[in-house]
Amino acid sequence: MANFDLIHDLLKPGTSKIVLLVLDGLGGLPRQSDSKTELEAARTPTMDRLAREGTLGMTIPLGPGLTPGSGPAHLSLFGYDPIARPVGRGVLEAIGVGLEVRRGDVAARGNFCTLDEQGRITDRRAARIPTEQAAPIVQRLSGIRLEGASAEVRHVREHRFALVLRGPGLDASLEDTDPQATGVPPLPVRASDPAAERSAKLVSEWTAKASELLRGEKTANGLTLRGFSTDPALPRFPEIFGVRAGCVAVYPMYRGVAALVGMTVIDVAGESPQDEFTAAGRIWTDYDFLFIHLKKPDSRGEDGDFEAKAAAIEEIDRALPSLLELEPDVLAITGDHSTPSQMRSHSWHPVPLLLWAPKTARRDSQQTFGEGACASGGLGNLPATDLMPLLLAHAGRLEKYGA
Amino acid sequence: MANFDLIHDLLKPGTSKIVLLVLDGLGGLPRQSDSKTELEAARTPTMDRLAREGTLGMTIPLGPGLTPGSGPAHLSLFGYDPIARPVGRGVLEAIGVGLEVRRGDVAARGNFCTLDEQGRITDRRAARIPTEQAAPIVQRLSGIRLEGASAEVRHVREHRFALVLRGPGLDASLEDTDPQATGVPPLPVRASDPAAERSAKLVSEWTAKASELLRGEKTANGLTLRGFSTDPALPRFPEIFGVRAGCVAVYPMYRGVAALVGMTVIDVAGESPQDEFTAAGRIWTDYDFLFIHLKKPDSRGEDGDFEAKAAAIEEIDRALPSLLELEPDVLAITGDHSTPSQMRSHSWHPVPLLLWAPKTARRDSQQTFGEGACASGGLGNLPATDLMPLLLAHAGRLEKYGA
Repeated sequence: MANFDLIHDLLKPGTSKIVLLVLDGLGGLPRQSDSKTELEAARTPTMDRLAREGTLGMTIPLGPGLTPGSGPAHLSLFGYDPIARPVGRGVLEAIGVGLEVRRGDVAARGNFCTLDEQGRITDRRAARIPTEQAAPIVQRLSGIRLEGASAEVRHVREHRFALVLRGPGLDASLEDTDPQATGVPPLPVRASDPAAERSAKLVSEWTAKASELLRGEKTANGLTLRGFSTDPALPRFPEIFGVRAGCVAVYPMYRGVAALVGMTVIDVAGESPQDEFTAAGRIWTDYDFLFIHLKKPDSRGEDGDFEAKAAAIEEIDRALPSLLELEPDVLAITGDHSTPSQMRSHSWHPVPLLLWAPKTARRDSQQTFGEGACASGGLGNLPATDLMPLLLAHAGRLEKYGA
Repeated sequence: MANFDLIHDLLKPGTSKIVLLVLDGLGGLPRQSDSKTELEAARTPTMDRLAREGTLGMTIPLGPGLTPGSGPAHLSLFGYDPIARPVGRGVLEAIGVGLEVRRGDVAARGNFCTLDEQGRITDRRAARIPTEQAAPIVQRLSGIRLEGASAEVRHVREHRFALVLRGPGLDASLEDTDPQATGVPPLPVRASDPAAERSAKLVSEWTAKASELLRGEKTANGLTLRGFSTDPALPRFPEIFGVRAGCVAVYPMYRGVAALVGMTVIDVAGESPQDEFTAAGRIWTDYDFLFIHLKKPDSRGEDGDFEAKAAAIEEIDRALPSLLELEPDVLAITGDHSTPSQMRSHSWHPVPLLLWAPKTARRDSQQTFGEGACASGGLGNLPATDLMPLLLAHAGRLEKYGA
């Protein structure tokens, strides 16, 4: 894990520009036909040139064998050990759908469930009610008003929603109301700390009003809440690393995580890689560090579509020259985690890393950007949390330690 | 970090000989013309043969992106985590110019500064007064006598000097007198711990007498002191690792750091690699472990002279057979840090490592000693602090752990 105090002590000012380009779910697995991964099968002349000029390696998001969710995977890339500094599930669910979570707010993950006539849970996920049926129900819940606090609710997908309470004197030390079993009713809202008594009362009140509104429903006639948490007050990225840090991302989750660590979130017109690079160019002079997030490789990986994931990577490669025209001093291209299309899900596999810094990067013998080349690359396998100090060093922003 | 207690528990006696050959600043960056580093461009037939017979890798001095000073870099190679066990800046400055620092001594870094008529600092570095002007001034200060303590002072270069106070009841818990600003006078000497009151008084007295002696100077008419510290009482290298340990080095800094951890410092007649290997041969039977330090690759790297750094490495390679004739059982060739001639300074880049142990080293497929080969070497990237246990193991000096 990056030693924040040490890094902060060693900072020196600079005018260099760092870009962390994250291709979500970049890492893959080889296909049968020719043993190439999605990245290796993709035609990526620009990334291959950068690979020849720079150094390759692999980032390990959490640790060997550990598959990260999107939140922890990004925190790790930003230098925060997501195991030592966990962010609550409620917070991640809320920011993942674009809800803001401030310090002192209470965020929770909500599940619709099915209750029998005695109020006992018969299905903890309300038969995974389709999104198009669930969304209007959530819309109804957004009308609930409380005394002394505001309540925001937003649909996630199927039976899932996020809830954020805001008001004075709140505390997130609340126990889950999901009993993790059927045949029993949802648990009452209980404070695990006396400081959260008032919050418990408010959440109970919200739950009671919501239950009223769900009374007529067939499947989604009940709900449970889990993962109560608040903004974990992480050390601020711009302060730790001494950079004006901007986030160029389209999806709420990534904008949310960036905001959580104190990056400024930039507006993007459109959703394509080119649109994001154009947004980066627009604000280029105002930032020292840009985190640019590209979602599509992960989405196509989760679809299980090898060809589409490779095509998504090719689309990024075609747009890349416009980013390079901005002349970053240090560019890292990597993923937050692997999403092999064969697995249709995130995985624990190390993630290809390309470090390009014309003045200070060593060259290894690798000629292309791909899993095989990265596994033999000059940087070796490194914890994702080690990336930030490396980028700062290449950007000339760290002093020598000791005489 | 090496677990000293564990290593010590596992020690077994032996007659094997270990040599740690440190080519200061060994690591480099590729030049434009043919993408070769200094080490790769150098003709090193002997090191290349050892590379074929041994295993290559990279040592990481402090951590990703962290550039070490000479002191921390060597402590790390000796197995001591220099961040967890910091050595004070005053101590490093003093031993760097050959002053001895014993437990309880107070060492400090001194700067000449320029004061205006009101005694306010106008230049914190006395216009970087040339060494030939500053040295005689330091000489004058060496005449200062104190009651109850001795004071040794030695010039470093330009405006810098080192001061060591020795006597009963001293304590280094003193605050810097450098206000890190101009327009204000130097700060008085203040104890940060009551135990250091007496030391504060003595240093004040020394400062007052020094100020008298500087009165006539134009630029160096004042001084500040920083980094007050004492011998950190590090665990003794010969005890931790169970070896009679000798240091063969010419420059004061490296002799000083070796002495600090309890190595015996050997006298060397001359300054060339051959002179050092000859000195090693002379005391060969008396030691189990020799740290041999060769300075020139770093000096030429700091000069920014690629060819001269490569030539310095070639000179070492030519002398190497005379070291091999002594028949070490284990030989590690590495650097304390990288000093790419393009950067003219220390850097954070991992450092080439060659581990040669004819009986126990695995062979990898590498054919030459260079950054590219080491990045693909069988040992991978390893923290420099992991090197000592590896050398002991190859020397047959560590028992099995557990039944």
